[in-house]
Amino acid sequence: MNSFGRIFHIHIFGESHGENLGVVIDGCPAGINLCAADFESDLSRRRSGMRGTTSRRETDAPSIVSGVYNEYTTGAPLAILFSNNDTRSSDYEQFRTMPRPGHADFVAAKKWDNFNDPRGGGHFSGRITLALTAAGVVAKKCIAPISVSAELTEAGGSGANIPETVNNAMSNRDSVGGIIECRAQHIPVGLGAPFFDTVESLLAHILFAIPAVKGVEFGAGFAAARMTGSQHNDVFITSDGKTATNHAGGINGGITNGNELFFRVAVKPTASIACPQQTINVQTNMIETLHVKGRHDACIALRAPVVVEAAAAIVLCDLTLRRKADVITNV
Amino acid sequence: MNSFGRIFHIHIFGESHGENLGVVIDGCPAGINLCAADFESDLSRRRSGMRGTTSRRETDAPSIVSGVYNEYTTGAPLAILFSNNDTRSSDYEQFRTMPRPGHADFVAAKKWDNFNDPRGGGHFSGRITLALTAAGVVAKKCIAPISVSAELTEAGGSGANIPETVNNAMSNRDSVGGIIECRAQHIPVGLGAPFFDTVESLLAHILFAIPAVKGVEFGAGFAAARMTGSQHNDVFITSDGKTATNHAGGINGGITNGNELFFRVAVKPTASIACPQQTINVQTNMIETLHVKGRHDACIALRAPVVVEAAAAIVLCDLTLRRKADVITNV
Amino acid sequence: MNSFGRIFHIHIFGESHGENLGVVIDGCPAGINLCAADFESDLSRRRSGMRGTTSRRETDAPSIVSGVYNEYTTGAPLAILFSNNDTRSSDYEQFRTMPRPGHADFVAAKKWDNFNDPRGGGHFSGRITLALTAAGVVAKKCIAPISVSAELTEAGGSGANIPETVNNAMSNRDSVGGIIECRAQHIPVGLGAPFFDTVESLLAHILFAIPAVKGVEFGAGFAAARMTGSQHNDVFITSDGKTATNHAGGINGGITNGNELFFRVAVKPTASIACPQQTINVQTNMIETLHVKGRHDACIALRAPVVVEAAAAIVLCDLTLRRKADVITNV
Amino acid sequence: MNSFGRIFHIHIFGESHGENLGVVIDGCPAGINLCAADFESDLSRRRSGMRGTTSRRETDAPSIVSGVYNEYTTGAPLAILFSNNDTRSSDYEQFRTMPRPGHADFVAAKKWDNFNDPRGGGHFSGRITLALTAAGVVAKKCIAPISVSAELTEAGGSGANIPETVNNAMSNRDSVGGIIECRAQHIPVGLGAPFFDTVESLLAHILFAIPAVKGVEFGAGFAAARMTGSQHNDVFITSDGKTATNHAGGINGGITNGNELFFRVAVKPTASIACPQQTINVQTNMIETLHVKGRHDACIALRAPVVVEAAAAIVLCDLTLRRKADVITNV
Repeated sequence: MNSFGRIFHIHIFGESHGENLGVVIDGCPAGINLCAADFESDLSRRRSGMRGTTSRRETDAPSIVSGVYNEYTTGAPLAILFSNNDTRSSDYEQFRTMPRPGHADFVAAKKWDNFNDPRGGGHFSGRITLALTAAGVVAKKCIAPISVSAELTEAGGSGANIPETVNNAMSNRDSVGGIIECRAQHIPVGLGAPFFDTVESLLAHILFAIPAVKGVEFGAGFAAARMTGSQHNDVFITSDGKTATNHAGGINGGITNGNELFFRVAVKPTASIACPQQTINVQTNMIETLHVKGRHDACIALRAPVVVEAAAAIVLCDLTLRRKADVITNV
Repeated sequence: MNSFGRIFHIHIFGESHGENLGVVIDGCPAGINLCAADFESDLSRRRSGMRGTTSRRETDAPSIVSGVYNEYTTGAPLAILFSNNDTRSSDYEQFRTMPRPGHADFVAAKKWDNFNDPRGGGHFSGRITLALTAAGVVAKKCIAPISVSAELTEAGGSGANIPETVNNAMSNRDSVGGIIECRAQHIPVGLGAPFFDTVESLLAHILFAIPAVKGVEFGAGFAAARMTGSQHNDVFITSDGKTATNHAGGINGGITNGNELFFRVAVKPTASIACPQQTINVQTNMIETLHVKGRHDACIALRAPVVVEAAAAIVLCDLTLRRKADVITNV
Repeated sequence: MNSFGRIFHIHIFGESHGENLGVVIDGCPAGINLCAADFESDLSRRRSGMRGTTSRRETDAPSIVSGVYNEYTTGAPLAILFSNNDTRSSDYEQFRTMPRPGHADFVAAKKWDNFNDPRGGGHFSGRITLALTAAGVVAKKCIAPISVSAELTEAGGSGANIPETVNNAMSNRDSVGGIIECRAQHIPVGLGAPFFDTVESLLAHILFAIPAVKGVEFGAGFAAARMTGSQHNDVFITSDGKTATNHAGGINGGITNGNELFFRVAVKPTASIACPQQTINVQTNMIETLHVKGRHDACIALRAPVVVEAAAAIVLCDLTLRRKADVITNV
Repeated sequence: MNSFGRIFHIHIFGESHGENLGVVIDGCPAGINLCAADFESDLSRRRSGMRGTTSRRETDAPSIVSGVYNEYTTGAPLAILFSNNDTRSSDYEQFRTMPRPGHADFVAAKKWDNFNDPRGGGHFSGRITLALTAAGVVAKKCIAPISVSAELTEAGGSGANIPETVNNAMSNRDSVGGIIECRAQHIPVGLGAPFFDTVESLLAHILFAIPAVKGVEFGAGFAAARMTGSQHNDVFITSDGKTATNHAGGINGGITNGNELFFRVAVKPTASIACPQQTINVQTNMIETLHVKGRHDACIALRAPVVVEAAAAIVLCDLTLRRKADVITNV
């Protein structure tokens, strides 16, 4: 469903063109200094505006309506709301008849008997990642001094010329995907569990909830499948667990080993593209040509690194809080 | 923790050299025909014996101690037990002092203040996947006519000569990883949810709990990051959602679209290798040479396809049962 | 934490004097007709105004900000917001120093290191039951034709003269408790489970989350402890499970038997009373006399029946949706 | 379902006449000294043998098959198994046709389409509380120095002459219920949460899963409904929260206040009684006379206090472990 986390438990809601979207954050410790201004830095990284992103403009002003008193978290659930203001909902009803290839129009209609909100993709929109990013801001504060940093390292197959690649896609009324790399520092040893809540399991769970993510790998990842054990094994060189290499991405047996946490995320190209596409008309049962209007990102991956950071911070926050219960001496 | 699933809820327990390992399966519908013989086919695929696998021999005889009456599931929780018989526990205590590179020895000791069971890796062992495979047998019965099939398509970087590649690794007292591909057929439209329980999220969650899995991708996966939208989008060609291509792996917006479900899993090489390795001696704080004894798989990926199938079946079973609640006409 | 339910999953947030309070409802089936006007009947029953209730006046206008499109639920999470308008927060800071007897001031400060919001009791306020009542409105729609009805049958020990009893308490600047009886009709056989999700368990769980509830009993309840088996057993008189008596309150083995569901709830007297009380001054460590100002209910139980109904409806909705997975013929 | 707890998470399984019953305990901290002998004291209190209890004799020898190494918990899940040895299953098949009044025969058959195991009541048996009691033994170790103590204070309406009351019931081939009082000492301030995981909510949830429990009240409980606020409020007399009276049962706002935790549990009379009863024959649709054979407790409440203690300890253990995450200074 729309919630995630065992102790640091978040619950998101909202649609692309609905009145509000937001997140309820439960289990946030009391005593975290928090105000609306704390969100701006991360939210601005997610916001559209740079070339290759949608022309929709939202101010993304967070409204903290509960859980904070005198600028500190109280221990009660935080609720953070956002408004949708710059919406144009007229073009979406057609997608019930002619579902966009690669998009959720078809499955949403089938799953919910056409009761789904089609405007802007409804609840399936990348817009919802705004709520995730906001939760990430809170999580990052809770996990300090752990820090998380993600960046887009490749778009459309090119690592060197990302803007040019995106430009070309836009010229072709097409879109491109990308690769995001994420690293977290100052990770303690011992977060995570062998079954089923490995660090990889929890991170992948939330990462694959980000629209357009289609692959996740940790450390050497898929390349590890082509290595020998003697190549892949990371030699421990200090008694606090530092390793000479980091093919494991900082995780052994599902548990952090104190080295840098490292993973990579594959983001597919935006499904909504302006160039003509074929699709089925579910009423006539004929294949027809679809012209997708509306405003869309040519490379959604440009805006996704901060969302990936948020996802990672949310997992790390939950695991940090859970870590307290591991040994009786902590009780 | 060691449980997974919202309705079809499994809970595993056990260690590599403990008395019993097993699984409790809750939420299994009543009326499923089930007896011990049903497990043999899948368990034999996971069992060691073929070249490249450990010389440890276990009969893996399942004991269904609750939840079945007159060979049908009753609606009460199933408990399925296995014994560990062929154990040699003498070689493991040294790994507290000299943790194996790439293994969980180090993190387990830190997480649980050296109270962890070191024998055979304890709870971190691939042995625990026996319980997962058994749960998969039950899940497969529940989801019929959905079928799940996984195979090893590549080991040590080679798709053509898997036995030879494994042989070479064994000659070098080394190990190799591999790639497993999994497909599921007869999938209805509408399983999964957009946040946070996308089909990808749930599958990745459980797949990354399988020891040695370091990457998961759906459909085109990482290759999608290098495609344009016009290349990647799967054109709908029938009104029940069949698509001309399947770059999405059968999932749009986190929800099954009725096409084949397809994903790939990267399995790292076995960490326990017989050739000498360096590691830290955590008592002397000196780097020393480690000689790993014990019996280990040169290519654990050889035994993993049926485990991957089980993981997929468990998720599909949970989602099938949850699917009933989507629209009020189903209530 | 602040969420409840496995499939019909609600998450509440807000404080007595915060900006907004509300509820996120997840797992609500698509296709439920719903608009703001649907809430008025139940919310008005909870609203203050009648003699014996607080002089605080709130309009309790629900704002459905997500999950509804064209007046039908979409399958995406519902978020329902309310504002707090008639607040007077000045009198509460003193309760950090002099905690009110019977109230949460003391425990909240200790639990959250004085970061808790003290205004109006913060998150501990009966105000939060507004969100619960709103969720109940949605649940009631989902469970039709099941109906739920609760009433106050006794206040301050008197069943016959409730208004007079409350009046006397007000005259004494004191408060009284009460007993609420709840009945649900048209219950199918088979809701609930033997462990741990008995109907009694789930109902009691949510009922004891309603502030001031201190006792819950089903059917004959505590009186059953004083009966013999031959007195207590309800004789089945039809093959669909109707019984001659209903000492079990419609529940056998934790599962509904198709008879009327019946339970009773004990509500303690409001802790905040205007007459002088002793309490500790935690700064001086001296016992002093406390004069509680602010506006409070002399008998909170007067407003609680609709909250009890909501709680029951929420549980029944979750169980109704879960019931689909019980036998394979339902899959 | 059959699991309970957020961090200290237990999962029970088994039937009255099945091969094994038991419990998986997850989230138990590492480093707890534990061996089979630790269980005997509590299990013997639950065991039959005293007058008024069933003539079925079980040794209840616990087998700890995972999660313990060198007599200490390892951090991996504990699995504890018991055998059913003294079973007589012949008399139960008739209850499919003629369901026992007050028992789960009818609902179980309906819920699971007659696939339920009828022998000894199957999964609905009080036998399953053996697993709960075992989990309680572990929980009690984890929560030290918190101690929990329950006793039967009344049977069949009599507090003074419990044996005589039970004797009379036996003479009449009838049964009686009882009242159990439970107290816990050395409780820290701050366990529990206002919504929905109040201490009352969690305790009631698990208590109502114990077969035959039909009422739960905290502190003054139902009597509180008949008190005024000035009578009920407990005056704080020390700055660490000690109160002059304890009408709240040690809980304010759902959170422990450091005083004795006190609650009462109503246990109904055993449904299976030897004297003739009427019931429906679901095949002939005629009301007939039922003669219940088998071996049953005349007063199940005699054996239940230690089960109530276990339930309380399990909740307190979960809350103790969760308490760590409340404030950031604890992170």
